[in-house]
Amino acid sequence: MLKVPSEFELIARYFTRPTTHTLLGAGDDGAIVQPSPGMELVVSTDMLVAGTHFLADTDPEALGWKTLAVNISDIAAMGARPRWALLAAALPTADEAWIAAYASGFFACASAFGVDLIGGDTTRGPMSFCVTIFGEVSPGRALLRSGAAPGDEIWVSGAPGRAALGLAHLQGRCALDEPTLGECLAALHRPQPRLALGLALQGLASAAIDVSDGLLADLGHILERSGVAATVHADRLPDAVARACPNDPGLARHCLLAGGDDYELVFTAPSSRHGAIMDLASTLGLALSCIGGITHQGSSELTLVDAENKELPMPSRGFDHFA
Amino acid sequence: MLKVPSEFELIARYFTRPTTHTLLGAGDDGAIVQPSPGMELVVSTDMLVAGTHFLADTDPEALGWKTLAVNISDIAAMGARPRWALLAAALPTADEAWIAAYASGFFACASAFGVDLIGGDTTRGPMSFCVTIFGEVSPGRALLRSGAAPGDEIWVSGAPGRAALGLAHLQGRCALDEPTLGECLAALHRPQPRLALGLALQGLASAAIDVSDGLLADLGHILERSGVAATVHADRLPDAVARACPNDPGLARHCLLAGGDDYELVFTAPSSRHGAIMDLASTLGLALSCIGGITHQGSSELTLVDAENKELPMPSRGFDHFA
Repeated sequence: MLKVPSEFELIARYFTRPTTHTLLGAGDDGAIVQPSPGMELVVSTDMLVAGTHFLADTDPEALGWKTLAVNISDIAAMGARPRWALLAAALPTADEAWIAAYASGFFACASAFGVDLIGGDTTRGPMSFCVTIFGEVSPGRALLRSGAAPGDEIWVSGAPGRAALGLAHLQGRCALDEPTLGECLAALHRPQPRLALGLALQGLASAAIDVSDGLLADLGHILERSGVAATVHADRLPDAVARACPNDPGLARHCLLAGGDDYELVFTAPSSRHGAIMDLASTLGLALSCIGGITHQGSSELTLVDAENKELPMPSRGFDHFA
Repeated sequence: MLKVPSEFELIARYFTRPTTHTLLGAGDDGAIVQPSPGMELVVSTDMLVAGTHFLADTDPEALGWKTLAVNISDIAAMGARPRWALLAAALPTADEAWIAAYASGFFACASAFGVDLIGGDTTRGPMSFCVTIFGEVSPGRALLRSGAAPGDEIWVSGAPGRAALGLAHLQGRCALDEPTLGECLAALHRPQPRLALGLALQGLASAAIDVSDGLLADLGHILERSGVAATVHADRLPDAVARACPNDPGLARHCLLAGGDDYELVFTAPSSRHGAIMDLASTLGLALSCIGGITHQGSSELTLVDAENKELPMPSRGFDHFA
């Protein structure tokens, strides 16, 4: 009979790696870090549950990457630099090959974005992961959801909707061709947090959020926290998803406007910064699309219009776990 | 039909309370805190899963308390002061009365120990909770597991084993009388993190850990991290559990030595500090029992002896989720 490794052996074997900027890593009651003098700490936590956030048969290496990437995305959306992470995992069994692949994806993401894994918890239970991430930002420089003002333009990075379209393909709701399929599955399984963009938006953007629930839903969070209304021009939205799915424009539109899981950034900025943001797109090699504007205060209404400024019906806004 | 509150409404209604030492609380991509100048940050995360860590029908108010208390205990065991917490929760349904009671217990514990809840995540899934906690400690003053040295005495606070005995009663494995039952269920459901003790042990103790897996198992972690061997005198252990369960000495002994979930502190200190620690017990009104000593380096062996120094058989050491 194979010996089943203990919880402590699993942690030691797969989740203990050298840290680069940590005083005390995993193995004690807590980890110890020394925040950089004067910096503010930005913290966020996300729980991913099998069946709710990912399919149970997802490739473990991709899942490991994504677990951390979605948290780094939150830090990027605040304009901060990620530094440390904690990982708590509930697993139904101690499948070593699975855990090794998961850890490999997790640490690939950690290395790519300069994050030390400094501790965590493993337990038996229905599969879920909870990552907590800590970033640093200069005092008062964090990008909040609450800073949008009338006259600001609204921007989105990359080509949102591809992750949702990839999922639709996996669920048999559409049939994508290569290389589109590869791009959409990469967006779904191995999202790239827009960290360089978030850091560069300090001092440029007035508000920012990452697209996890859907483009319109997440823009809606900016509008609510800022107390402002906005108009989005459907014809100015990135059209990659529409081109990828020409036979089902309804699905493409739903993926674009309400599909979550892309982790692109939506942000607002004064129109005076339009040129600087276009320059930034060029510097980063990342598409940045100006998709609308903040219209007025005192309401958080979101209006979608076509090329002739005619109002379009609003699709369902995104994902709510208890709705 | 009753309207089901959305994820965002639930967060706003039950988990958003005023903070006292936080720059930006829940509601953005991340929370923002300003660590005290020069202090080190101690961080820890714990996941509690229904069926593994608590019974699914546990009183939600007690569960809310305990979810946070076990994390504060980790910070206390490091000699640090808890400051901020994040709460991620997976819930099978949005039962408002249950959530209200859970939040009430959670915030009662947060208020009692000066912790700001600054963010979190709610999702649908099999019930589990993941709390991440951040404390502060002066540079180099944290109590680690790795500092025990030959000649040190071994101490334990309070009356470990009561939580396990309370659980045994609930499972029908023993029948406790009042008021013992009340004390054991309080230890199980509403553990008191030994924060005042942990803070006072800075500069006194050489190593510390909280008893979550069992007295001998957790002492074993100190021995492993310190690379030292120890002898524990069974007759010097607190006898509250033995007195509470006179008809089943085997069960009492198992609860005392291997029962987890009490969150008492086990610590080591040079024998020259014996008097100072007895004074501390008196100051805090908390029993502190000297139960043995660190014998030598180069092994992490733990020996249990009786009053005549005769070696006793070692019970199973504690809880391992994957063993």
